[in-house]
Amino acid sequence: MSSTAQVELICIGNELLIGKILDTNSQWLAKRITSLGLSVRRITVVGDDVEEIASAIKESIQRNPSFIITTGGLGPTFDDKTLEGVAKALGLILEENREALEMIKKKYEQYVAEGRMEKFEMTEYRIKMARLPRGAKPLPNPVGTAPGVLIEYRGIKMVMLPGVPQEMMAIFDESIAPILRMAAGNKIFYEVSLNVRGIPESELAPLINQVMRENPYIYIKSHPKISEKTHIIELHFSTTSEDQSIAKQRIERAIMQISDLILSKGGKIQPIQI
Amino acid sequence: MSSTAQVELICIGNELLIGKILDTNSQWLAKRITSLGLSVRRITVVGDDVEEIASAIKESIQRNPSFIITTGGLGPTFDDKTLEGVAKALGLILEENREALEMIKKKYEQYVAEGRMEKFEMTEYRIKMARLPRGAKPLPNPVGTAPGVLIEYRGIKMVMLPGVPQEMMAIFDESIAPILRMAAGNKIFYEVSLNVRGIPESELAPLINQVMRENPYIYIKSHPKISEKTHIIELHFSTTSEDQSIAKQRIERAIMQISDLILSKGGKIQPIQI
Repeated sequence: MSSTAQVELICIGNELLIGKILDTNSQWLAKRITSLGLSVRRITVVGDDVEEIASAIKESIQRNPSFIITTGGLGPTFDDKTLEGVAKALGLILEENREALEMIKKKYEQYVAEGRMEKFEMTEYRIKMARLPRGAKPLPNPVGTAPGVLIEYRGIKMVMLPGVPQEMMAIFDESIAPILRMAAGNKIFYEVSLNVRGIPESELAPLINQVMRENPYIYIKSHPKISEKTHIIELHFSTTSEDQSIAKQRIERAIMQISDLILSKGGKIQPIQI
Repeated sequence: MSSTAQVELICIGNELLIGKILDTNSQWLAKRITSLGLSVRRITVVGDDVEEIASAIKESIQRNPSFIITTGGLGPTFDDKTLEGVAKALGLILEENREALEMIKKKYEQYVAEGRMEKFEMTEYRIKMARLPRGAKPLPNPVGTAPGVLIEYRGIKMVMLPGVPQEMMAIFDESIAPILRMAAGNKIFYEVSLNVRGIPESELAPLINQVMRENPYIYIKSHPKISEKTHIIELHFSTTSEDQSIAKQRIERAIMQISDLILSKGGKIQPIQI
């Protein structure tokens, strides 16, 4: 996977650090990014703290990924500090972005038109969502009020998305997925899983090694699942290629080889739908 | 929360970076650690790569937390590389640990006795799980075969736990929770949540600011939940104290204040069971 474009995710929110919220955003993003043909190198979770956000971003920039995507901290409350952290990391000032302000205004006008609000004013808390690092581009939020944000910095595309999953997904699909797809070229990610019963992981290990040696483009990972009395291990096969049928062939060949080895050791195999 | 002992989590596994697995381990750990009175400062997810693991650990050490807890990468397969990464980060060699080897042997003997295996040999793959950084202490795994690992390094306690949730939780509860509880002193974490309806987050923001200003020990975070037509926002109140009744009183006072403000703006309030 080393030649694929790299992405880093930075998830921002105290609620993640106290375990109040399960971070489903980074799994969703990792899956989508991988299936678009790029690879996620690192995920970092930090709290709502300008210094922490800024240092996570600076460290990520030093690893020089093609993309840095953050989630969380774009809203109107005092602890939404992502853009302040980004501005600090990049040495930029925050300023009112006219396009962002327009997007936010229109949203509230829409809410009023729909009867979800009686009236609205552009309070400092609402204007805050339009204060972007200089040079940033706001990304329309089809679901909520806070726009996403895109900044290019030293060849790295930095994308800031809200933490509310529906908003994050909507902005990603509408504005980010097309850019990532282009960066990936024609690469696709292909994966298949099998369940293996009746062999402990420590006996599977040498079989996996052998098959990976003979199938250099295939990555096989074993995931032991604990059930009452039986050993069940999921074997996950994946590969990245520019040609779907080549990817498929490669994985089928590896599965055939490992299946023979497993059956000869008295194990049983069961396909899994991914 | 700045005076509480800090913990960093490092979760290791390619399956997390491709989004195949939802990282429930770090949420479980964050919740347990927080409720024991410590605070999680950062969560880092990296793949099964010795260099990546070693650099995540080195970076974490530089932030000087009281504890670093890793999950994943302790098993018998080729891509279980956590201990190699830790040894590299700390400049230690890996060597067969007699106590760990005994633990692993006993597990397999138990499996044979229970009829889950016919016989076993201490293959290189099984011995691999007993190769620990020099000076490390193995921690009994009540559920699976790979022991957890504890190392002290420059005053930081580093704990390596398996990635299989049941094994991770069992080792944590048996061997790590007591150490963390001691490090926390008598600090406890106390939290309450409310649902607020009928007020958009941007109108709640100034109310939260006001109440937090007047209640310096209380942290309030708003979590917008999107439903069809109504705005619902969860308000989460938390505090850390050495005295449960003081913590409770503080939170009750803050809730009373914000409730008055919300009701006066026409909002509605509903308690939530955490």
